[in-house]
Amino acid sequence: MFSKRFKHLTPYTPGEQPQNRKYIKLNTNENPYPPSPLIEEYLKKADIDLLKLYPDPGSDKLRKTIGEYYNLPASMVFAGNGSDEVLSFCFYAFFDNTNGHLLFPEHSYSFYPVYCGFYDIPYKRIPLEKDFSISVDSYIEEKNYSGIIFPNPNAPTGTYLEPSEIKKLMINTRKDRVVIIDEAYIDFGGESAVELVNLFDNLLIVQTFSKSRSLAGLRVGFALGNNELISALVTVKDSFNSYPLDTLAQNAARIAMEDTDHFEHNKTRIIETREFTINKLKSLGWEILPSLANFIFIKKDNITGKEIYEKLKDKGLLVRYFGHSGIEDFVRITIGKKEDMIVLIDLLKTIGSH
Amino acid sequence: MFSKRFKHLTPYTPGEQPQNRKYIKLNTNENPYPPSPLIEEYLKKADIDLLKLYPDPGSDKLRKTIGEYYNLPASMVFAGNGSDEVLSFCFYAFFDNTNGHLLFPEHSYSFYPVYCGFYDIPYKRIPLEKDFSISVDSYIEEKNYSGIIFPNPNAPTGTYLEPSEIKKLMINTRKDRVVIIDEAYIDFGGESAVELVNLFDNLLIVQTFSKSRSLAGLRVGFALGNNELISALVTVKDSFNSYPLDTLAQNAARIAMEDTDHFEHNKTRIIETREFTINKLKSLGWEILPSLANFIFIKKDNITGKEIYEKLKDKGLLVRYFGHSGIEDFVRITIGKKEDMIVLIDLLKTIGSH
Repeated sequence: MFSKRFKHLTPYTPGEQPQNRKYIKLNTNENPYPPSPLIEEYLKKADIDLLKLYPDPGSDKLRKTIGEYYNLPASMVFAGNGSDEVLSFCFYAFFDNTNGHLLFPEHSYSFYPVYCGFYDIPYKRIPLEKDFSISVDSYIEEKNYSGIIFPNPNAPTGTYLEPSEIKKLMINTRKDRVVIIDEAYIDFGGESAVELVNLFDNLLIVQTFSKSRSLAGLRVGFALGNNELISALVTVKDSFNSYPLDTLAQNAARIAMEDTDHFEHNKTRIIETREFTINKLKSLGWEILPSLANFIFIKKDNITGKEIYEKLKDKGLLVRYFGHSGIEDFVRITIGKKEDMIVLIDLLKTIGSH
Repeated sequence: MFSKRFKHLTPYTPGEQPQNRKYIKLNTNENPYPPSPLIEEYLKKADIDLLKLYPDPGSDKLRKTIGEYYNLPASMVFAGNGSDEVLSFCFYAFFDNTNGHLLFPEHSYSFYPVYCGFYDIPYKRIPLEKDFSISVDSYIEEKNYSGIIFPNPNAPTGTYLEPSEIKKLMINTRKDRVVIIDEAYIDFGGESAVELVNLFDNLLIVQTFSKSRSLAGLRVGFALGNNELISALVTVKDSFNSYPLDTLAQNAARIAMEDTDHFEHNKTRIIETREFTINKLKSLGWEILPSLANFIFIKKDNITGKEIYEKLKDKGLLVRYFGHSGIEDFVRITIGKKEDMIVLIDLLKTIGSH
């Protein structure tokens, strides 16, 4: 009864959401602070009569608002149902099996190979440097590929590339292949490469409202790039589901984008808590990759990542363990509220010492 | 820069939504009445702090509520971002280009050929009967096909098949191919074939909250079928976008499903207005296909569908004109509020008489 393409699907596995026990959840990179309180005001007064009508299929007002924030016209903005859907549309529009492999980092967002399975796109994992950073030179060396994608900061490592490195990559790669920089975590101290979309027609920046704007539950993501790439994404959307963004989500995301005070306040708090946590853990002898994300990737001699994960879970605190070859000693820990990180630090004092 | 699959995409064209003038909109089959007032209560009290967390990827509570309404376990319910996304996942999971053509009616929902273009699925349009109805015999005659899909009631015609006809189809078609009955309009007087999913493992029923539950703006649709088909849809979702339904949409849809009084009241009003409109137009000499949907498909001698559409638009009333060969004399008119239908009837008095 199933299609041949269905038979070799391997779905993405999101971080666990156990229902049986109350955990301190530092495993899915959610924001510990609530979204803009103006969203609450909006929902209180929302005219639900409008919900009988289809939403704006183009999300025009939202695209305009996002564009204004980044100093781009709405025609250079695409909005979709979370950056996962935006990325899925990108893979459909730009990558196939006729032009070599899609390139992405050896350790990276684990949805990328899933999309490749979904659309039958061959891929090649490019090794990280010894310090787990991404080297743009290792992408520049490649000559035959269908495209390039990586997160910046990378996940699950947290390491970051300056826009000058992205620019170097764009200058030295093929102009007939799309390069996607997945900036899901860019707001926690990094600088977006968004200004480069005016210089490079084959560059697409993807971002989300799920992390720095505390709206994982609302499902809004977006892409920034030249008109031709954005039009292609609109065509893909209109061939799959014309209205992936509901009316409430479009309006609430617009409000979140405009409330820059709330955004800056939360982002600053998370950065401060990250630096506090890193300093404490370093003084306890933990090894931590440099992070400009809302998570850290940590390890310690003489204990495996699996052991760290299990011992923390046993004590009621959830982190993410991947177990892939090369990063099996690490766990990824989301930056939560300071009080949660203090619990974490206390637990890691005992777990780390043999 | 574009994938080869992108190059032959033809996107779906939704009904026009003009911004330049205020029209009476009877062109997109929206419900003229608001959704359950309990949704307004919910949004007023909604804990927006929850929006910082990812929604339940499985929409488990919503699936349970829908299941209870139809007397099915949650494992036989799939929920997605409008029935358009649900259908898109179905086309991915069940139909391909290795087993003959996908069969659907000559005149039907115009998204079906778009999905076929999106996933490279060859299709064959099965002619309607002389009275524009669907004959299940014409599907039973086919032997080599990858699947069958049609709306019941059909769109844009409004004609309806009893569950006994669907049962006859299921008994006499291949057991190794999936049959999808798209019941977007079933609540306006038809009887759902949902009970047949317990008898036929290859039958899938697709429904939506957009029409009879007045929630087009919220993007929630669902599929009902045996566990194996539903699991396949979950796998497809988890390979495309794990969380297509946001937290507010999941909760509001649940509230709408539970408010059966509001649902029955709106549905009854629409059916009454449809019958009123049909009787008036028949007395004016208009030909109207029998409809169990929230729209009617009408024509008159000596005037083309295009002329009807243009003259009504000129007077400030929007209807849908398709212009496809065989139905070029018809326009499709959504059943709105009674006062809007009285305006329509008055306009059609003058338009229809030469």
